[in-house]
Amino acid sequence: MSAIKALLFDVFGTVVDWRGSMSRDLHEFGQRKGLERDWTAFADAWRALYQPAMDRVRRGELPWIKLDVLHRMNLEQLGEPFGLQALDAAERDYINGVWHRLDPWPDSVAGLTRLKQRYIIAPLSNGNVALLVNMAKRAGLPWDLVLGAEVARHYKPQPEAYLTAVELLGLQPAECLMVAAHNDDLIAAAGCGLRTAFVRRPYEYGPAQTSDLAPMQAFDYVTDSFIDLAQQLDC
Amino acid sequence: MSAIKALLFDVFGTVVDWRGSMSRDLHEFGQRKGLERDWTAFADAWRALYQPAMDRVRRGELPWIKLDVLHRMNLEQLGEPFGLQALDAAERDYINGVWHRLDPWPDSVAGLTRLKQRYIIAPLSNGNVALLVNMAKRAGLPWDLVLGAEVARHYKPQPEAYLTAVELLGLQPAECLMVAAHNDDLIAAAGCGLRTAFVRRPYEYGPAQTSDLAPMQAFDYVTDSFIDLAQQLDC
Repeated sequence: MSAIKALLFDVFGTVVDWRGSMSRDLHEFGQRKGLERDWTAFADAWRALYQPAMDRVRRGELPWIKLDVLHRMNLEQLGEPFGLQALDAAERDYINGVWHRLDPWPDSVAGLTRLKQRYIIAPLSNGNVALLVNMAKRAGLPWDLVLGAEVARHYKPQPEAYLTAVELLGLQPAECLMVAAHNDDLIAAAGCGLRTAFVRRPYEYGPAQTSDLAPMQAFDYVTDSFIDLAQQLDC
Repeated sequence: MSAIKALLFDVFGTVVDWRGSMSRDLHEFGQRKGLERDWTAFADAWRALYQPAMDRVRRGELPWIKLDVLHRMNLEQLGEPFGLQALDAAERDYINGVWHRLDPWPDSVAGLTRLKQRYIIAPLSNGNVALLVNMAKRAGLPWDLVLGAEVARHYKPQPEAYLTAVELLGLQPAECLMVAAHNDDLIAAAGCGLRTAFVRRPYEYGPAQTSDLAPMQAFDYVTDSFIDLAQQLDC
């Protein structure tokens, strides 16, 4: 069995708490603007439009469009239900930028810092490069490099997204460990020959979460945090 | 004038001392293998094949081929003049990997560490991603992300190499500062609208160097080291 050389991380939900961060960030924005809204419901509604928008790209119904632009398109759909029609372009851009300002889970930075001592670490996210770089600078995520859908011009779980990352690293798929809180991501990565680590993130969708509470197939590692993953990988 | 947000670095000669590093590394290799050769002359001969090989890709005479593979092709041409025909494939791969094991100039790590506090920093090199990542891990180069020719599938000084990096960062060209020890690289970057910093590296080709000793046009910054650049940029 070949040694693992690189760890590739899903980001939204796995490294960062998009729902909690967005609620806090937009609550503050709303307070400054005098907009009292249920920003947690807003975060959930926005996130619900995420997969359908990428599906249009995956099916070829839309050309390649990076996630910042898909988010901005989806945001327009929330104007009416959340009463945000009066916002100007700069305010909408500010809201859209919240995806660049997400906070890590409490164990993420410490775990990544340990894992980086021994492995190449990179995000392999559907987020675009600028989003991931700005997030990392703000949150202190110590990536060695930034990979992801934009570099491959294919959204996960399409195989090209995983295999482009492996190819750019000059590695074999089995030398790469995909780390994610989502079964579908890991199942697709395993299908491409990557090794897999499931990280439980039971509060990604809040306390009533019902999805991805447990691994749905035999992944190589099952962990509760990045610290736990570092321990299991002898870092 | 828009503020600079990202610093993009040429690598071979600008960040790392390829000639000195390669001489030392291959001298040790030669001692282990009982091969006494002039490894500095070998480094110069190999480097002399670098631009002609990329030119074949730039002209479309060859398809996109990453630098590790071009280096390996060029290495075959040095077998006879340097009496290396008896080396096996693993030994040739080891020699080819020397481009992943280059040492930084003395000011590089300290300067980059300061510059990273305030700016996004990334290599924008003709080296492929794996080469740049392995080099960074070994040498402690604290890049935020890795950009370069392979991501654009175009070798510098073709405009696509610069503009793909700018696009992936979600920035305007004038928000990016190209840092290089080579006039041709900076002239091409300026032609794409990037800002430019010339770093004097008068010993890249050894003490008898005659090229790139001084800036050939009015670049935005002219510096003697990355520490000097950090000071000029108020880092």
